[in-house]
Amino acid sequence: MTMRTTMMRDVALLLVLLWLGCCVAAAAAAGGGDDDAGTAPTPSEPRRKPSFVIFLADDMGYGDVTYYGAPTTHTPNIDRIIREGKDFRQFYAAASVCSPSRAGLMTGRDPVRMGIFSRILRPSLRVFFPWNTSSMPSNETTIAGLLKTANYTSHYVGKWHLGHVNALPVHRGFDGFFGIPYSHDMCSEVYGVEDLPIVNRAVPPLPLMRNADILEQPADFSSATDRFTDEAVKFVHEHADQPFFLVVSYYQPHIPHVTPLRYKFHSLRGPFGDSVQEMDVSIGQVMQAIKDAGIDDNTLVMVTSDNGPWVDSGIDGGSPGPMRGAKGTTWEGGTRVVSAFRWPGVIEPLTTEMTPVSMMDLFSTFGHIAGLNVTSTPDFATDSHSFAHLLNSSYAPSAKSRPAIYYFYHDVLMAIRMGPFKLHKYTRCAYCYEEPVPQDPPLLFNIDHDPGEQHPLSVEDHLLIVDALEAEYDRYLSTISPRQPLFDQFKLDAAPCCSPQPYLQPCNCTHANMTVGEAAQSVSPNRQSTSPASAKIRKAAKALYTMLEKKHPDLLTDKLTSEEVSAAFESLIGSPMEPVMQCMLGGEPSLEGYEEDEALFA
Amino acid sequence: MTMRTTMMRDVALLLVLLWLGCCVAAAAAAGGGDDDAGTAPTPSEPRRKPSFVIFLADDMGYGDVTYYGAPTTHTPNIDRIIREGKDFRQFYAAASVCSPSRAGLMTGRDPVRMGIFSRILRPSLRVFFPWNTSSMPSNETTIAGLLKTANYTSHYVGKWHLGHVNALPVHRGFDGFFGIPYSHDMCSEVYGVEDLPIVNRAVPPLPLMRNADILEQPADFSSATDRFTDEAVKFVHEHADQPFFLVVSYYQPHIPHVTPLRYKFHSLRGPFGDSVQEMDVSIGQVMQAIKDAGIDDNTLVMVTSDNGPWVDSGIDGGSPGPMRGAKGTTWEGGTRVVSAFRWPGVIEPLTTEMTPVSMMDLFSTFGHIAGLNVTSTPDFATDSHSFAHLLNSSYAPSAKSRPAIYYFYHDVLMAIRMGPFKLHKYTRCAYCYEEPVPQDPPLLFNIDHDPGEQHPLSVEDHLLIVDALEAEYDRYLSTISPRQPLFDQFKLDAAPCCSPQPYLQPCNCTHANMTVGEAAQSVSPNRQSTSPASAKIRKAAKALYTMLEKKHPDLLTDKLTSEEVSAAFESLIGSPMEPVMQCMLGGEPSLEGYEEDEALFA
Repeated sequence: MTMRTTMMRDVALLLVLLWLGCCVAAAAAAGGGDDDAGTAPTPSEPRRKPSFVIFLADDMGYGDVTYYGAPTTHTPNIDRIIREGKDFRQFYAAASVCSPSRAGLMTGRDPVRMGIFSRILRPSLRVFFPWNTSSMPSNETTIAGLLKTANYTSHYVGKWHLGHVNALPVHRGFDGFFGIPYSHDMCSEVYGVEDLPIVNRAVPPLPLMRNADILEQPADFSSATDRFTDEAVKFVHEHADQPFFLVVSYYQPHIPHVTPLRYKFHSLRGPFGDSVQEMDVSIGQVMQAIKDAGIDDNTLVMVTSDNGPWVDSGIDGGSPGPMRGAKGTTWEGGTRVVSAFRWPGVIEPLTTEMTPVSMMDLFSTFGHIAGLNVTSTPDFATDSHSFAHLLNSSYAPSAKSRPAIYYFYHDVLMAIRMGPFKLHKYTRCAYCYEEPVPQDPPLLFNIDHDPGEQHPLSVEDHLLIVDALEAEYDRYLSTISPRQPLFDQFKLDAAPCCSPQPYLQPCNCTHANMTVGEAAQSVSPNRQSTSPASAKIRKAAKALYTMLEKKHPDLLTDKLTSEEVSAAFESLIGSPMEPVMQCMLGGEPSLEGYEEDEALFA
Repeated sequence: MTMRTTMMRDVALLLVLLWLGCCVAAAAAAGGGDDDAGTAPTPSEPRRKPSFVIFLADDMGYGDVTYYGAPTTHTPNIDRIIREGKDFRQFYAAASVCSPSRAGLMTGRDPVRMGIFSRILRPSLRVFFPWNTSSMPSNETTIAGLLKTANYTSHYVGKWHLGHVNALPVHRGFDGFFGIPYSHDMCSEVYGVEDLPIVNRAVPPLPLMRNADILEQPADFSSATDRFTDEAVKFVHEHADQPFFLVVSYYQPHIPHVTPLRYKFHSLRGPFGDSVQEMDVSIGQVMQAIKDAGIDDNTLVMVTSDNGPWVDSGIDGGSPGPMRGAKGTTWEGGTRVVSAFRWPGVIEPLTTEMTPVSMMDLFSTFGHIAGLNVTSTPDFATDSHSFAHLLNSSYAPSAKSRPAIYYFYHDVLMAIRMGPFKLHKYTRCAYCYEEPVPQDPPLLFNIDHDPGEQHPLSVEDHLLIVDALEAEYDRYLSTISPRQPLFDQFKLDAAPCCSPQPYLQPCNCTHANMTVGEAAQSVSPNRQSTSPASAKIRKAAKALYTMLEKKHPDLLTDKLTSEEVSAAFESLIGSPMEPVMQCMLGGEPSLEGYEEDEALFA
């Protein structure tokens, strides 16, 4: 590197840092209360350690709450948290899909450092699946583990999705868990048929678990959210006299929309809106419990989403609002999510923060607020930078501020943002079978001026900026040690199942007596998957139901054993049940024709 | 028409009406305060006639205020009006461009009924231009004229844009006017060069007017918004003891962004955001005046925009948020605009309304609230349906409810919405030279479920719905009598000018002594027009400034007569000034080469 190049880099970095400075100054100006003419009250310094509550939505886009512009979705309880607190408009999930995003949230570390990616089956395996034996590594410290050192009790309610073989919340620092281990579509639908024929067809029913035990399998979604709400409310009341950390992690509005009848047709937005509203009501009930327990002033509540909307689900997916792209992409719509923090008396209400921060920063921020020194142990919080000072100015800014926002697809660093500038080195479609497409010259945007990433800047006119972004791009990659790709570790019997041999025995606990009618009807009609297999399942379910209705209406209501159901099905259509239908009914899957794939599990 | 077809139409209409019913019921449920569990207080019945204030933005998109999801634009004062009142999420401007939209707002009648369209120069002439002799017809009754019958005093501040030859607000029912007659880019930029060579090059400087008199020409934009604010504040204080109707019509955030220095770099969103923030601060100041005057509880304030964002302006245009399309289109982004109504004690705060209403409905709604019978005279309010009952349930719903939302391009009915269904019979790009493209079969969307118009429904599966929409489409067109297209009436000396012969004499009043430097620098560098002529002007202005700076720096600061400037320019670059440069400087335009176009003015 010549001296001239070095000097130019320095100048460029200085320029970017100046931009960052401007950014903070402008954001601070913007955040000064909702009245430019008024005198904002100085928030008082927090007196003691607050409890922390995270409401985490699943696949809720930037444009899916009323306060962020949703035209026909009604979210009064989320909106109230936003209004009564500080609203972060440049808040980034740690990844654009579920598992890596949640791993970043939990550990304050970039998921790529933990090996949370795939190499062999990249387009299909972007999250943990029921067949994965791997998980977010046990040597990572989670926020729960960190806060335990400050005497916090912790509890995790709802969807986990960071692995399930000795890798549930209770194995990763939480004192308790009540919820589901992975996504609720990981049974009734078929994934990545093209490259994973066998594992797709051998997924047992989704279990509902307490700590490490299966309570029911399949989980009953007609009451699941109510039970999550009750669990969170009970936890709040029982732990009101001590600091706690509670995560309420909703499976909404991820597809399929399994909303109970009383929320159906509740929203003008259709099944997606019903799903959002069911979640919103639950959030309101937990917020009411916090007030009833008398700890409103000493609880820091935040609401956010694990990633952007799954627009590939069509009308049943959410909206990125004004952003480009969605879940699965490294455009802003993939990771820029709704986010707000509420702590009465400490966080000024009706304020908006525009400084870019990452979901990974929550680890250090919560640690900081709990009075811990999160930088004392080198392994901790490599990628987490406390922004407590943005919540209340009495907290000291962290010594090292966040250098950039990094956008990964698996272990490929696709794009990077510093100050207002975002550089795309690669782009890629969301759910497709394409490897990242290099952008040469790279695509440069000023995403403060152009949040929709519609107007690329001339790279020639911004050479210093591009140089600075590329230098940070290289530096960041150089800090990441090679890891085994965790998504590529799987085994036939990895999924939690109340039978010791899930693929040879029925795997039902509470619903062994589910009726055929219930099973056939529970295949979501709203799912708009492009997978031909998915269409086939729906067709089979519909055909089954219609035939039974005509020829054996008694079968639709009678409680049968799964063996009887399977036999009835076979006698009716003259061929064995589809394995996925069996999965739903708890029957034994046929492995015929998939023998060669067993090698995958060797 | 066979009996079967008739019957099917009836069934279809019934279905759509049922949908409408559902719509209203669901919207009412959504609108019941921000707490589903709480008991909403019943608003008290209004005691006396309120004053009305409309804050009208220009080209502000659905996604351009914080409360509607803008990531880096800061609008605390607009947000406060939204929060303290009722927020309408399905509020439609009367058209997707300025003049017809404003005509619909003012009269409660579809602009196409008044002839507010073009036939001969359709792509270019979609609004009134300085050369138009025509205007919103004088036999129309405006809201100001209507409210005068209930003893309201009225005042119009800011941008008008409904014609200027005996057609200013004071000629159309308002008691006073202080503002600009048309858009503030109608001088320094070039329009529709391809088909209107002469008129484009002969536009005098924009005048600032009081009532029908020119105060200054060109208007000074370094203080224009401040003066508009002062005017509105003064009007509020002077009329606090009687009911009034005040329109504050901003030229922001329409391009070019002529924001004064103290707002520049104020917003992270860049020049567009600075422009929005300048307007927002002004709104806050007028709101403060309403409070200071002691009439806060008796003033119905609303905020909205004349149409969607002008995304063709690139990074300097706004955002439609989650909507498809923008200004100039009949997608939702063209006409679905931010809208909220605030009237403390009468309109419940923190409520959201999802019933579709039109800006044309304001006429009847305001009339209704002022105690007038707006349906007594047949000519009145053909297309205006009071939604006062949505603001306060003590108002009776109007006898006839809005049948549909109609989307026009000139006099072509492009699309229609009934209940949640929108049918596109034609589509078209926004700013282009293309006639509407017929859609056969038509495009059908459920825009409650799919606000982004991304997922067309199968027409085959919705034949009854399509039939009902097409029947209403035909019925509506049959109610519109043929009119002369008003945009096609123009004359060389139509523009307001303080010289009696604007195209033969300089047309400056207060700025005859503008310096060359000021003139050259006032050509907006941010404008990203695709017009080659526009680029040429900018280049010429830049070249002029650079040359003067080098060779005659004294010229940049010395006050010269326009003749001297013109001479200096010619001596420097060896050719006559561009006519548009002359327009800015108040010089005499050269008509050379455009003689044949004079026939247009015959």
